[in-house]
Amino acid sequence: MTYSDIKKQIEEKKTLLCIGLDPDIEKIPKHLFSSDDPIFEFCKEIVDSTHDLAISFKPNTAFFEAHGYKGWQSLEKIASYIKEKYPEIFLIADAKRGDILHTSKMYAKAFFENMPFDAITINPLLGKDVVAPFLEYEGKFVILLGLSSNPSAYDLQLIQELETREYIFEKIFKYGTWWGTENNIMYVVGATMAYKLQQIRNLVPNHFLLIPGIGAQGGSLEEVCNFGLVDNNYGLIINQSRSIIYADTTEKFADVARDKALEFKNEISKILEEAKNKRKKRTRF
Amino acid sequence: MTYSDIKKQIEEKKTLLCIGLDPDIEKIPKHLFSSDDPIFEFCKEIVDSTHDLAISFKPNTAFFEAHGYKGWQSLEKIASYIKEKYPEIFLIADAKRGDILHTSKMYAKAFFENMPFDAITINPLLGKDVVAPFLEYEGKFVILLGLSSNPSAYDLQLIQELETREYIFEKIFKYGTWWGTENNIMYVVGATMAYKLQQIRNLVPNHFLLIPGIGAQGGSLEEVCNFGLVDNNYGLIINQSRSIIYADTTEKFADVARDKALEFKNEISKILEEAKNKRKKRTRF
Repeated sequence: MTYSDIKKQIEEKKTLLCIGLDPDIEKIPKHLFSSDDPIFEFCKEIVDSTHDLAISFKPNTAFFEAHGYKGWQSLEKIASYIKEKYPEIFLIADAKRGDILHTSKMYAKAFFENMPFDAITINPLLGKDVVAPFLEYEGKFVILLGLSSNPSAYDLQLIQELETREYIFEKIFKYGTWWGTENNIMYVVGATMAYKLQQIRNLVPNHFLLIPGIGAQGGSLEEVCNFGLVDNNYGLIINQSRSIIYADTTEKFADVARDKALEFKNEISKILEEAKNKRKKRTRF
Repeated sequence: MTYSDIKKQIEEKKTLLCIGLDPDIEKIPKHLFSSDDPIFEFCKEIVDSTHDLAISFKPNTAFFEAHGYKGWQSLEKIASYIKEKYPEIFLIADAKRGDILHTSKMYAKAFFENMPFDAITINPLLGKDVVAPFLEYEGKFVILLGLSSNPSAYDLQLIQELETREYIFEKIFKYGTWWGTENNIMYVVGATMAYKLQQIRNLVPNHFLLIPGIGAQGGSLEEVCNFGLVDNNYGLIINQSRSIIYADTTEKFADVARDKALEFKNEISKILEEAKNKRKKRTRF
């Protein structure tokens, strides 16, 4: 999948929504337990009922691994299901992997060869070696942990370097532009860090940013779009997990998830429409 | 498993050796392909033939994930096999996981509940939240990526902070002492960074350090022991993977692996013996 494929999908669907698939066995509807693979069934129903409202799905590997090899089997099944039935969807493995070269090659094989993911989230602490094997795959993206939204993001990411006075997260954004291009690298930026987006856009004017943390963690959609959109209409992939997938836990959960996704999509469409009008005005004068 | 259990094992076996299980399908002996689960068979034979020469085994998750759910099943099988047959062994999941709180809980469940690992390697880039759920398990260890041995370790770990003039890796060592104790936290230190071990021992005088990178990556065993041993006789877990497990690829691979492990063990025993004599002399005067 290419940068312009994702851009095109945003234009057609008028949304930036990515739905995070974090199937927590304690939260999924009880009636699914009668199926052979409740984890897969849960994800499948969410995907089938929301795929036209989202540009991306993002299974979080931890929630599958927590069930051992059977969970991993569910992960493989849902990844294949999504790419076969909805090939336009940008499929992200939220795996936060990050290891030295010869190990990274194996992770790349796992997610880009044995499973049909278009992208994987990567932890860049160990530097360039971590990323290199993933970038050898055409049409795939590495999504670097740029600046996370959790409280302890301050422990390391917001430390300032002596020599350059740059923050660690700034260095990560910069390294990404050295290691690859906007055609194979994206960044995670937590929505609670929206106030840093202007600074980030100076470093990476065109790269897509994957934004978790809106709503649940207190980030604001308007603020994120205001500072983060490229050319006022793309460049952001906005993740929502729990507020959509656990909105209801009865047999109607997939319908309610659709309602929530639609609500969110409408909010985004409105912002994109307003931004478009602003752009038109700017062009006119 | 406790700090003193590991110390005791070192005293009894007179070694610091950890054998890394990185089962690369392109390197394992061809005759194993006739078995149902060549990955498991390979690891099992290595373990059976070397368990008395090592204090620890360290399966690297990437090499299992590269084979999808079947690989994950092999990982589960080898982890259970080791803990059932050789309960004294310190069993490390080299998984380099690292995510925010609610996701980290799931990883902890995967490795500490569904599988019987005693420890897991953790990437601390996202700060304390990553580690917290793992530390809730009694008798388990988090092994923080302290300072890696790969060439691009310089990208982030060896950056100096403006405010405190500390290096990022130093901050990681310090954080570990705030987040936990030597009874539940260890650190990875690449052997090529042996020249930093004195500095590291000032920060963590008693914590165990897991040391990859001897031999293959150019690290020196003498140097590592010289600067890294606690009280001249423990505090280090020295990993060897490829030089032992791929020493031979015929039907005799497990015997040759044993020869290599014994060679390495003898080197370590000699160093430990010399260190002990030094200690005795020091005590005498």
